[in-house]
Amino acid sequence: MYFDAIKQMKKHLGQLDKWLETAATLAETKKFDAKNFMGLRLSVDQFPFGRQVQVVCDTAKTVAARLAGKEAPAHADTEQTLEELRARIKTVIAYLDTFSAADFANAATQKITQPRWEGKWMTGADYFLEHGQPNFYFHLTTAYALLRHNGVGIGKRDYLGTLTQHAPA
Amino acid sequence: MYFDAIKQMKKHLGQLDKWLETAATLAETKKFDAKNFMGLRLSVDQFPFGRQVQVVCDTAKTVAARLAGKEAPAHADTEQTLEELRARIKTVIAYLDTFSAADFANAATQKITQPRWEGKWMTGADYFLEHGQPNFYFHLTTAYALLRHNGVGIGKRDYLGTLTQHAPA
Repeated sequence: MYFDAIKQMKKHLGQLDKWLETAATLAETKKFDAKNFMGLRLSVDQFPFGRQVQVVCDTAKTVAARLAGKEAPAHADTEQTLEELRARIKTVIAYLDTFSAADFANAATQKITQPRWEGKWMTGADYFLEHGQPNFYFHLTTAYALLRHNGVGIGKRDYLGTLTQHAPA
Repeated sequence: MYFDAIKQMKKHLGQLDKWLETAATLAETKKFDAKNFMGLRLSVDQFPFGRQVQVVCDTAKTVAARLAGKEAPAHADTEQTLEELRARIKTVIAYLDTFSAADFANAATQKITQPRWEGKWMTGADYFLEHGQPNFYFHLTTAYALLRHNGVGIGKRDYLGTLTQHAPA
């Protein structure tokens, strides 16, 4: 089930990549600098758009790595353009593709911590449910909200992507 | 694991209730009508704030019911105030409290459909992962974004709530 959840994050990253493409097209059509998207915020004390996308990427990457007991590759957060963000997304998708279901055999009982927790730790099961997954969707939806708020033509279907539906029985 | 996920939704509904309390306090302090929150949107073709909260409630309710093979109670979407929204949230929390782990024994293989799918259906496992959970977080985070955008003093900790952390070993 953790592997399925990581595949779902990968799917959302693919959708996020498409939103950025739509945003770049809007900039072209309306003849403004696509970099203008990078600094958008809904509140002055909130991460700007570029950082939101970086955090979506980092959350997917670290959740997968931590649950599998691996070390995630580092990324320098140097992206200045939508194209660079899209390259980052593709890097993370490729990283997620290196995992298999077997990597998550001990995910639920992994002991997860991070520097800001000052030694406190969570089980993999709790970390995933209470922290990793909510954070992933938080930054993904915030990125979506920033684009919608600024006229990028995306909708709920672009958020969900293709559903695994079966024909009427 | 579906039961754990429903409990996590319940936790988020409790946090959402606190955000609404903080929003009501801001209205009192700044002496504006708290109903002003109800119609907020980030985009003209988006559900307003009040509807976002209703959909968060409905998503939690219908995900739990569908995965358990039950019929969810109907709510009339008549809320006009933050207080009425908070009452709705509490009703859904109480409904989620009626479920036990055993209710979700067959969740993964439930055959899930809804009128707009025109007969197409999803397995419970796919529906939860690809539709129910992403939609829940989508509307929850959109409600959060609308409040943040309008000066309500909430932050990431109010989104995540208390984490199940263990003392340093």
